[in-house]
Amino acid sequence: MTAVNRQLVLHSRPKGMLAPGDLQLKETAVPGLQDGQALARVKYLSIDPTMRIWMAADSYLPAVAIGEVMRSFGFAEIVESRHPDYRKGDRVTGFTGLQDYVAVELASQAFQKVPKIPFVSDTVFLGLLGINGLTAFFGMEMAAPKKGETMVVSAAAGATGSLGFDAAINYKHRDWKGKLAAAVPDGIDIDFENVGGEIMQTVLGLMNLHGRVVVCGLISGYNKQDPGMMSLGTVILKRLRVEGFLLLDYVSRFMEAATQLGQWKMFGKIKDRETIVEGLEKTPDAINMLFTGANTGKLIVKI
Amino acid sequence: MTAVNRQLVLHSRPKGMLAPGDLQLKETAVPGLQDGQALARVKYLSIDPTMRIWMAADSYLPAVAIGEVMRSFGFAEIVESRHPDYRKGDRVTGFTGLQDYVAVELASQAFQKVPKIPFVSDTVFLGLLGINGLTAFFGMEMAAPKKGETMVVSAAAGATGSLGFDAAINYKHRDWKGKLAAAVPDGIDIDFENVGGEIMQTVLGLMNLHGRVVVCGLISGYNKQDPGMMSLGTVILKRLRVEGFLLLDYVSRFMEAATQLGQWKMFGKIKDRETIVEGLEKTPDAINMLFTGANTGKLIVKI
Repeated sequence: MTAVNRQLVLHSRPKGMLAPGDLQLKETAVPGLQDGQALARVKYLSIDPTMRIWMAADSYLPAVAIGEVMRSFGFAEIVESRHPDYRKGDRVTGFTGLQDYVAVELASQAFQKVPKIPFVSDTVFLGLLGINGLTAFFGMEMAAPKKGETMVVSAAAGATGSLGFDAAINYKHRDWKGKLAAAVPDGIDIDFENVGGEIMQTVLGLMNLHGRVVVCGLISGYNKQDPGMMSLGTVILKRLRVEGFLLLDYVSRFMEAATQLGQWKMFGKIKDRETIVEGLEKTPDAINMLFTGANTGKLIVKI
Repeated sequence: MTAVNRQLVLHSRPKGMLAPGDLQLKETAVPGLQDGQALARVKYLSIDPTMRIWMAADSYLPAVAIGEVMRSFGFAEIVESRHPDYRKGDRVTGFTGLQDYVAVELASQAFQKVPKIPFVSDTVFLGLLGINGLTAFFGMEMAAPKKGETMVVSAAAGATGSLGFDAAINYKHRDWKGKLAAAVPDGIDIDFENVGGEIMQTVLGLMNLHGRVVVCGLISGYNKQDPGMMSLGTVILKRLRVEGFLLLDYVSRFMEAATQLGQWKMFGKIKDRETIVEGLEKTPDAINMLFTGANTGKLIVKI
């Protein structure tokens, strides 16, 4: 083949939005084929928020290297094959990258053959049947909504959020907070979170006790350095389970626990320390000690 | 009785650390007793980070009102009783408030009688057997550590964290991050979080995949307005369960999910939309559309 393979390569890591030149168009030769390879013509590219993460730094996948073709999911058609599993005209999805042609390797797990579905656009393999539909599918499995519960999906106009809903709020509306509150008269049981920041904060403020949050994305914070948001980012990256703890939930079991703690203490299995400050009038200073790290163990004021 | 009851009342809501005058000393008469009441002399006050929350705003308990005795946990001794369950000399713990004397009501659930334990200081009822020991006890139940796992407790020099440990890191040490990393060669499985902010961020960065975080406190952020930290605060307040979701964990089940999604689509049970942009060279603009909300549904570039 003598065709040209246009590629968008990562030239510089974006700060905030992509600037002109962060991705640069490069013309290269279409790759020649060896045994065990097939050549695919890319037809459709899947454009996803996570691409912004891949440009920035190592995360759940290594960052795209400077000078490398930008990683993306895509749909492609085999145009030439020296690979026993692929024939000309076969259709595949996988990590095509932002380019016209991609070589499909024999050992590669990165591509999957997909069928031609009558009357259905091939783009369905990138959206509904691609990473967005799959994210919605498995995300709902994790969220496990029960009949009668209220779930909020942020960034619902995006691919993952748009599969079905009872009410929609435009986050650019002046009174979106009021509209959101009005749409959830019984509070929110599940937050399927894709945004973070002020939107997440507002949704959490409307949640019912012991609600569940599935953190799938934090698109509002991909360019920010706020430690709380970065912690939430790590919750995704490491698939952490975070639970809020409040002692008041356990009041009925205080006696049981105190008895056990007392026994452990008696047998030397746990240790405790106290810092005692004398005088009611010293209490304000004592409270401030907690925030400067001046006490060790339990801080008590003796009157 | 003619004694004076000294009280620390909330005069102004602190900004940051407590300033002189946020709590003001006030002398009042010791409350006279009615039938069904007992009078207790407060001996010890429990000084806890959560008091800072009670001063600021409504949370899991209503905020202390301006002019009201500041709420606190404490240990007290009954000095006079017209209550059938209490006798002079009985010892109680509960919400005494920052004052010399407190009236214990008949219907009140707020006080609990505690025994005199030989050779043990009464202060044990505020620390080890009080809210801090109980927090550690039930917090560990929620964290559910398994043999061989590594757990990190932040603010471990405080009352809840100090019951036992293999290694301790001073967060004021110049190289605390390096020391922490060195102390957890197999990574961290559980974070029992009391601090938030940079400490939490550092701990989460060292966590193993699918680790657990019990958020018990965020003392570093009680004075801050960072949306991520405020979201984590709400996780405590509402006892939410937050889980990180990453599609890559489900690769082996993609076919199952796509089949199901395809059926739902065919029967009209779910809806999807697409926004298609034409031309490889338009891809950088398309990526930016995701961050400005310009697309509806799945965003695709057609080459």
